[in-house]
Amino acid sequence: MAANTFGSLFAVTTFGESHGPAVGCVIDGCPPGLPLDRAAIQAQLDRRRPGQSALTTPRQEADAIEVLSGLSEDGRTLGTPLALMVRNRDQRSSCYEDWHHIYRPSHADFTYDAKYGLRAWQGGGRASARETIGRVAAGAVAEQVLRQRLPDLRIVAWVARIHDIPAHAVPADLDRTRVDSHPTRCPDPKAAAAMEAAILAAAEQGDSLGGWLELVIDGLPPGLGDPVFAKLDAALAGAFLGLPACKGCEIGAGFAGAVETTGAGHNDPFRWQDGRLITTSNRSGGIQGGISNGMPITARVAFKPTATIMSAQDSADDQGNNVTLAAHGRHDPCVLPRAVPMVEAMAALVLCDAYLRQRGQCGDPWPDPAHAPA
Amino acid sequence: MAANTFGSLFAVTTFGESHGPAVGCVIDGCPPGLPLDRAAIQAQLDRRRPGQSALTTPRQEADAIEVLSGLSEDGRTLGTPLALMVRNRDQRSSCYEDWHHIYRPSHADFTYDAKYGLRAWQGGGRASARETIGRVAAGAVAEQVLRQRLPDLRIVAWVARIHDIPAHAVPADLDRTRVDSHPTRCPDPKAAAAMEAAILAAAEQGDSLGGWLELVIDGLPPGLGDPVFAKLDAALAGAFLGLPACKGCEIGAGFAGAVETTGAGHNDPFRWQDGRLITTSNRSGGIQGGISNGMPITARVAFKPTATIMSAQDSADDQGNNVTLAAHGRHDPCVLPRAVPMVEAMAALVLCDAYLRQRGQCGDPWPDPAHAPA
Amino acid sequence: MAANTFGSLFAVTTFGESHGPAVGCVIDGCPPGLPLDRAAIQAQLDRRRPGQSALTTPRQEADAIEVLSGLSEDGRTLGTPLALMVRNRDQRSSCYEDWHHIYRPSHADFTYDAKYGLRAWQGGGRASARETIGRVAAGAVAEQVLRQRLPDLRIVAWVARIHDIPAHAVPADLDRTRVDSHPTRCPDPKAAAAMEAAILAAAEQGDSLGGWLELVIDGLPPGLGDPVFAKLDAALAGAFLGLPACKGCEIGAGFAGAVETTGAGHNDPFRWQDGRLITTSNRSGGIQGGISNGMPITARVAFKPTATIMSAQDSADDQGNNVTLAAHGRHDPCVLPRAVPMVEAMAALVLCDAYLRQRGQCGDPWPDPAHAPA
Amino acid sequence: MAANTFGSLFAVTTFGESHGPAVGCVIDGCPPGLPLDRAAIQAQLDRRRPGQSALTTPRQEADAIEVLSGLSEDGRTLGTPLALMVRNRDQRSSCYEDWHHIYRPSHADFTYDAKYGLRAWQGGGRASARETIGRVAAGAVAEQVLRQRLPDLRIVAWVARIHDIPAHAVPADLDRTRVDSHPTRCPDPKAAAAMEAAILAAAEQGDSLGGWLELVIDGLPPGLGDPVFAKLDAALAGAFLGLPACKGCEIGAGFAGAVETTGAGHNDPFRWQDGRLITTSNRSGGIQGGISNGMPITARVAFKPTATIMSAQDSADDQGNNVTLAAHGRHDPCVLPRAVPMVEAMAALVLCDAYLRQRGQCGDPWPDPAHAPA
Repeated sequence: MAANTFGSLFAVTTFGESHGPAVGCVIDGCPPGLPLDRAAIQAQLDRRRPGQSALTTPRQEADAIEVLSGLSEDGRTLGTPLALMVRNRDQRSSCYEDWHHIYRPSHADFTYDAKYGLRAWQGGGRASARETIGRVAAGAVAEQVLRQRLPDLRIVAWVARIHDIPAHAVPADLDRTRVDSHPTRCPDPKAAAAMEAAILAAAEQGDSLGGWLELVIDGLPPGLGDPVFAKLDAALAGAFLGLPACKGCEIGAGFAGAVETTGAGHNDPFRWQDGRLITTSNRSGGIQGGISNGMPITARVAFKPTATIMSAQDSADDQGNNVTLAAHGRHDPCVLPRAVPMVEAMAALVLCDAYLRQRGQCGDPWPDPAHAPA
Repeated sequence: MAANTFGSLFAVTTFGESHGPAVGCVIDGCPPGLPLDRAAIQAQLDRRRPGQSALTTPRQEADAIEVLSGLSEDGRTLGTPLALMVRNRDQRSSCYEDWHHIYRPSHADFTYDAKYGLRAWQGGGRASARETIGRVAAGAVAEQVLRQRLPDLRIVAWVARIHDIPAHAVPADLDRTRVDSHPTRCPDPKAAAAMEAAILAAAEQGDSLGGWLELVIDGLPPGLGDPVFAKLDAALAGAFLGLPACKGCEIGAGFAGAVETTGAGHNDPFRWQDGRLITTSNRSGGIQGGISNGMPITARVAFKPTATIMSAQDSADDQGNNVTLAAHGRHDPCVLPRAVPMVEAMAALVLCDAYLRQRGQCGDPWPDPAHAPA
Repeated sequence: MAANTFGSLFAVTTFGESHGPAVGCVIDGCPPGLPLDRAAIQAQLDRRRPGQSALTTPRQEADAIEVLSGLSEDGRTLGTPLALMVRNRDQRSSCYEDWHHIYRPSHADFTYDAKYGLRAWQGGGRASARETIGRVAAGAVAEQVLRQRLPDLRIVAWVARIHDIPAHAVPADLDRTRVDSHPTRCPDPKAAAAMEAAILAAAEQGDSLGGWLELVIDGLPPGLGDPVFAKLDAALAGAFLGLPACKGCEIGAGFAGAVETTGAGHNDPFRWQDGRLITTSNRSGGIQGGISNGMPITARVAFKPTATIMSAQDSADDQGNNVTLAAHGRHDPCVLPRAVPMVEAMAALVLCDAYLRQRGQCGDPWPDPAHAPA
Repeated sequence: MAANTFGSLFAVTTFGESHGPAVGCVIDGCPPGLPLDRAAIQAQLDRRRPGQSALTTPRQEADAIEVLSGLSEDGRTLGTPLALMVRNRDQRSSCYEDWHHIYRPSHADFTYDAKYGLRAWQGGGRASARETIGRVAAGAVAEQVLRQRLPDLRIVAWVARIHDIPAHAVPADLDRTRVDSHPTRCPDPKAAAAMEAAILAAAEQGDSLGGWLELVIDGLPPGLGDPVFAKLDAALAGAFLGLPACKGCEIGAGFAGAVETTGAGHNDPFRWQDGRLITTSNRSGGIQGGISNGMPITARVAFKPTATIMSAQDSADDQGNNVTLAAHGRHDPCVLPRAVPMVEAMAALVLCDAYLRQRGQCGDPWPDPAHAPA
């Protein structure tokens, strides 16, 4: 499959470099007749865009989406490809001229050169977080598709740890508004304040911080996903690791669950409850055998400290010389707050594709609206 | 894409249920002219098969591979689909009759029913680890394809932790022989002995243990992988999470690297060394921007404690009743030792597809054997 | 996509060479719960197999199908990959030893060598018509899937012309039984007799004949197919041209319609009839804009004269020599009668995939059985 | 695979409706480092665009391409997605308001409604020939990729018949300049003049004409294509039938070859000539067993008379009424002249994908430029 396409039935192809004319995506396979809520798309893009707070890069981009195709005159999806585009505006390629021949540490400069023999040396090129605009926009569409049938669907990610600061008090009924109540997107106010201070201190020193997000998805029925290679957890992990700076993913009890308990303690007992099968614990994270079991899907996703830092670093150029690199320019001292809508978007893309695949192979999972999962 | 197919150019489709007639795979896109080393395939299958030690299920299966197609009369690959099959022998479906209508906790019984409306209730069906026979066989072929051009390629996984017992002394030049020197496949002898005792004790109590594997890949040149969705780390994480019982994956410094250091500490400085670009640390785990940088690829992969345990558990049946399940039958008290060749196989499949894709899009990365990476 | 896989949701991968151990297919994405009618599969394989009449190669193969996976104990599809296999029996590789280094004219010997650098020189290898066993079996499964929802679906191909002998009197309500009433599979008895005589005369002279098939599909609702690349007619034409010896395909009025009438004469007028929209002519062949319009789908498919002939021919070997080839062995003097089930199978595969895709993207086209198309 | 994507390694996704904001394509998998010749792209678009002669629709569109991504600052391909876009300008949706609820005969109005439940009723929507802008642009890029390695590659299509007027004198060394020397794109001057008169006469009467194109591809080495489903002829036929108004395709001697000669007459004898294997006839049309044999690839492609005509026709609306439709607006009285670059583009896409696939699976077919095919 094409490397820049994600999904099989709800297939999203993104395009664009950070310093080229535009970034965007083409969504092929969107169900027809959906009244597209552009404001909902823009809302997720606004959570992703730079310049939204003191914690993010000051690059100024409104990131206003333009729909190039796929909509009827009254704004419903036609079922044909939905092309969405954002023009790049505040590019300042000149900032990068000093580094034209330098491989920035832990960036993709060298590996793109090794792969392609050339690269867009202005900014991150294709490896820039600007590429995720297409994903976030497509994910917002995917979420709308899902929500038509699953009105209680909730896909919420939040910052659960920055550097050595974990969040503790995270409410079970978290929503995006609450997540956004602090610029860190950590819903534990105390931890959020500490995180903000830590990020600003790191920025002050020209340094950066990493951390991890947590994600919960509920309102989802059992039966989504596939055996084997296309397991729902495999798809989610692959989707998240495809995000810039992501270094790990665990589902349900994850790494800790693998070593802190035994099978007797890890298994999730089934119980019938009001005619619905539930588990009384959820170490499986809502997925068993690669298929959703109707319990909340939970995951944790790690992002490394931003590779762009302002302090001097050992590095090398593309001419065989070792050099010292003193970065300048604009960057995020911590990608986590902006990664929240990216993770939600990738989750929505995985789920929407799984839903359409399920409907294709097995028939509509909830043909009778009265029996759709609530 | 089809859910049971992995890879785009080196495309592997597996088939088979644990208690059906056979399991196997079809490999489409294998480069032609490779003298197939069947013994090397069988060697990996033998590391995967049940009954190989006291730590594994006593189900007796020789798992001898039959090649159904794709070979010339002198045993070279024709470039056409290579179909590999293993007959199921020691099935004992009767063991499962008591549970025909019972959903075993943390198995895929319920989710398959929810998805398909029926399931192969004898054994794990498609969710059984027997399905991985096709993957391990295909991975062994992939490794041979890679090794033709990359004679120093090394793909080695080992057990790095079982329950609360971590491995400490793991040699840098680990190979499979050394890994196999203990039935746990932990190369730290002290830890291995403790792990073995812990697994046997858990088995004695009808319980099971989890843990994690570590994986190193070296002898690989820079330039493999793709930007965005098909990042090499995304592909690896998706590949591993698609294995039975896998709950998490991290690349390079992973979760710990995200929170235990800052950008200045996490970045890997570049240096030219003997005309080759290296990094003086490897927190990136050999992958930057989704593309290999020529340093060793490192990953950690978590497997939960085996869901099949022998003690009584709360569960439910498919008729709306809550029940108590007392399992019997054959099972692995810990999947980790047998997961080693599975992880290696999935890594080989990811790399082989990335190599062929790279050769397709960008031309042979090492056209002159004299300059192939050593 | 893998070259040996056909379809996206109902994805069929075939494997096997004519003189290897086995041929077969893996069907991924089959809807679950279908009580598989093995006799119906075998019936189509029997129409395809050699030795069925004096008009076909005397190679003796029962071509009895074995199901390796994907079925429940009571014979219903599990939704997991359905692997079907036929062992090769009557192989006689020795017949081909004389030609080990010779490129038979208009066969695939040379082109396989040019592509792969080696080939299975015994028989046709992968280019043999034996490969179509997997397609015919999979097509028979696809037809069963379709028939669950479309009980009046009819997919019937027949021999419409052999060499200079056209069929004239073809009844509108043709079915397979009637097609099979003559070994030529031409339903016009007079033409059939002449065709049979012509084929036998050609065989007598060591020569071979070509011709074309016609195909009708009805009982199909409007709305199947896709715009652009995946048009239903594009998919059908690609499917048929992928069959051995096929050299052309036209849909509806085809080539003649393009030049024998004008737009005013070619357009199919719409009319409402009993609440259903029909066209009063069908030069479109049931497909408009790549999507079925509910009228019968019609196509014509050309097959060249069999390349294997018994008279002496100029040819060349793989050592740079020009040679004279005098073929021997077994062959079909005319592939058309056996191509009938192959064309039906490919049509069923195209339609089944289109149906599942439609259900995936747009929802069940006929959610209420009472309103399913009759 | 996504319905609006063509190709696997050189994967082109088109987007856009005739009366939406824009049409275009995203090319994923383009080899890196190609200095993109935009003028060559525009040249093919100019051959495709409306308003180029009295024989084409007067809709005025410059169809100037904008590159949105995938190029380095010095205009070379980056290996990342190349997004190309053309804004729609001269749309005049108001022309279509009368037909908002009417299904135009032999258009896609009804079938899109049947499939999606709604449609872009202004113009042809996604079924419009404007969608082919993306294909023609992508095909021009594919041709540049191929030409880097195959400098003598020639892909030329021409009008070989309009209605009852066949072309006779077609030179063997035809090129695009010669084809374009007459607005009909028929290279036989006498026939061209007659065709032009016939088209203008049909237009005068509000009617339209069909016909067929012929295509030749040479300068291509043996070994491109695949066995079975992805045969080169299958891919070409599927590609052409996916074009608007296309109703048939034949390869080499096609339909006539199937019935006008026997095997002895149809087979192409092999001969060694100057160290290269050729065939002394070419009824195979350059493809044997689905793989190129190094001889010219030849095909014939039929296009029906344009469905849009100006005379009154019986039709129906979407409310259950039969109506009489008197069309107005702009249309092509014959699509053939503008179909020439479309057929060339689809051929280039098929070949480029086959070339990259071949390089991926089997290694560079011509690693030594000195031995590249001339």
